Amino acid sequence: MENKIKVGVVGYGNLGRGVELALNAAPDMALCGVFTRRAPEKVRIQSKNVKVYPVDELPARAPDFDVLILCGGSATDLPVQGPAFAALCSTVDSFDTHARIPEYFSNVDAAAKSAGKVSLISIGWDPGLFSILRLYGNAILPDGADYTFWGKGVSQGHSDAIRRIEGVRNAKQYTVPVKEAIDRVRAGEYPALSTADKHTRVCYVVAEEGADQKRIEHEIVTMPNYFADYHTTVHFISEEEFARDHAGMAHGGHAIRCGKTGKNGETEHVMELSLSLGSNPEFTASVLVAYARAAVRLSREGKSGAFTAFDVPPAYLSPKSAEELRKTLL
Amino acid sequence: MENKIKVGVVGYGNLGRGVELALNAAPDMALCGVFTRRAPEKVRIQSKNVKVYPVDELPARAPDFDVLILCGGSATDLPVQGPAFAALCSTVDSFDTHARIPEYFSNVDAAAKSAGKVSLISIGWDPGLFSILRLYGNAILPDGADYTFWGKGVSQGHSDAIRRIEGVRNAKQYTVPVKEAIDRVRAGEYPALSTADKHTRVCYVVAEEGADQKRIEHEIVTMPNYFADYHTTVHFISEEEFARDHAGMAHGGHAIRCGKTGKNGETEHVMELSLSLGSNPEFTASVLVAYARAAVRLSREGKSGAFTAFDVPPAYLSPKSAEELRKTLL
Repeated sequence: MENKIKVGVVGYGNLGRGVELALNAAPDMALCGVFTRRAPEKVRIQSKNVKVYPVDELPARAPDFDVLILCGGSATDLPVQGPAFAALCSTVDSFDTHARIPEYFSNVDAAAKSAGKVSLISIGWDPGLFSILRLYGNAILPDGADYTFWGKGVSQGHSDAIRRIEGVRNAKQYTVPVKEAIDRVRAGEYPALSTADKHTRVCYVVAEEGADQKRIEHEIVTMPNYFADYHTTVHFISEEEFARDHAGMAHGGHAIRCGKTGKNGETEHVMELSLSLGSNPEFTASVLVAYARAAVRLSREGKSGAFTAFDVPPAYLSPKSAEELRKTLL
Repeated sequence: MENKIKVGVVGYGNLGRGVELALNAAPDMALCGVFTRRAPEKVRIQSKNVKVYPVDELPARAPDFDVLILCGGSATDLPVQGPAFAALCSTVDSFDTHARIPEYFSNVDAAAKSAGKVSLISIGWDPGLFSILRLYGNAILPDGADYTFWGKGVSQGHSDAIRRIEGVRNAKQYTVPVKEAIDRVRAGEYPALSTADKHTRVCYVVAEEGADQKRIEHEIVTMPNYFADYHTTVHFISEEEFARDHAGMAHGGHAIRCGKTGKNGETEHVMELSLSLGSNPEFTASVLVAYARAAVRLSREGKSGAFTAFDVPPAYLSPKSAEELRKTLL
């Protein structure tokens, strides 16, 4: 225990619970505390002998941790917590608002550099592993194109949008990649595809008793930005079916790089990373835990500031020695 | 030109030609010389204003280069050239004899460290990109299993073995992955699969006139180590068909990591890197060129010794700045 990496988890929702599970599978790391905005006594965690603290105590308790895994959301939690906690301890987070990454990076970088800590931002599978495939793909095949397909998986934002419609009791929206579009990309056709060309939207809706289902369906499929540009299917189901069939958090997708080599670009290559994830939060948590190990290693090397998955040598994610990795996995 | 990375190519076969092509697509790198064991005047390269030198001149000319890309074979060339040239200049190679990697690493490491140079060994797609998928997979999903499928693609060793049979004029052997086996792995069945369970062998043979085709087929399918344990198909074809249909060097494959998370391992995940390569040597060369850029960057940081793809941050493969990468690819 004494030599293990001491990990703190900030925020105990689906992602925080996933981190707790992933740490159980890490031989060199230990969960040493959970921080929450709720009343600590109301947060029941699975691990025994691990304390739950009010997040206000983080400044005082940070020196007891090697790294904090930030499990808040990208919309409102991380923009505040990321820079604030980077000034206290090395951190890892899954900030995923693509358009705001440069700004977020710069805020976290400044805080981490002043404190002499390491912060790994935007870790997960997209941004994260898919970004890495895009980077390797662009570097190896500079003459080419990137395609990303998401799903089948739940979009929280789209599910929320449906739930705001009058007469809707509950709803879940799946983003489903269009198989024909994937096949065209894999065949090296270099099709021009919008997000709507690449995905359909499938909605499962529990309506209030007596609600006008035709009106609800119409409001969904014509909703600007969210659904109007997409091929959208709406299924009305019972509360029981909803609970039975749509509680899961599976997700996944395909990041594809197509590229040409040869004197006149006559040789075609396709690189594809496919993920099929039984649970989006459990997988993302497992990625965060591996990068928490890397953050500690970078910090022990004397590095400081913000970094992304692009900056981390793959070997830093593993508890095994370089020699063992070369022997067993190369 | 003056600010470009100065690259030397050692060995001008299929791989060396591929490197020359890949360098044309790299805005920040320039081919500045080719070294050969043949008489230089007999080696015709595509690039104008680039000289071909006898490999014996490498010790004297090495200071004119930032990095050498070694394009020799793993059986006899690289075990000698790797350590010898690592003492002269930073190098990148595609050493792929898995069992001998630890020994090769140690020889190259000693030479590169004494000389204060950087050598990246075993770069390509397997070892290389597939190894990276295995490493990310093992670090993220420690409770799981690795599966690697190769092909469809030509195995040089198996083609050579057929050509040694009496009465065979020419032959090409394709390693073909078994689709049902891939499907079982993707479905999370964790099947126990030997290399023979995962691949079939398809042979195209041009027989000498009057040769006994039944005997040749029998000698192929019963050949120990190479074919006896596999499902092997033999097709006899004409010299014309051989030249028309079997001149290509396409290859590819699938590296798959299946893993479990959750309290009792109840959640299944599959990570898969698939490659479909129009030309094995052109793609491998493109990987080598991207890592040559990384070797120069590591060297400029003051690093020395041997490294593998595991030790290189993804960003080091790209000519773009960290800021641009975060903005465009993360």
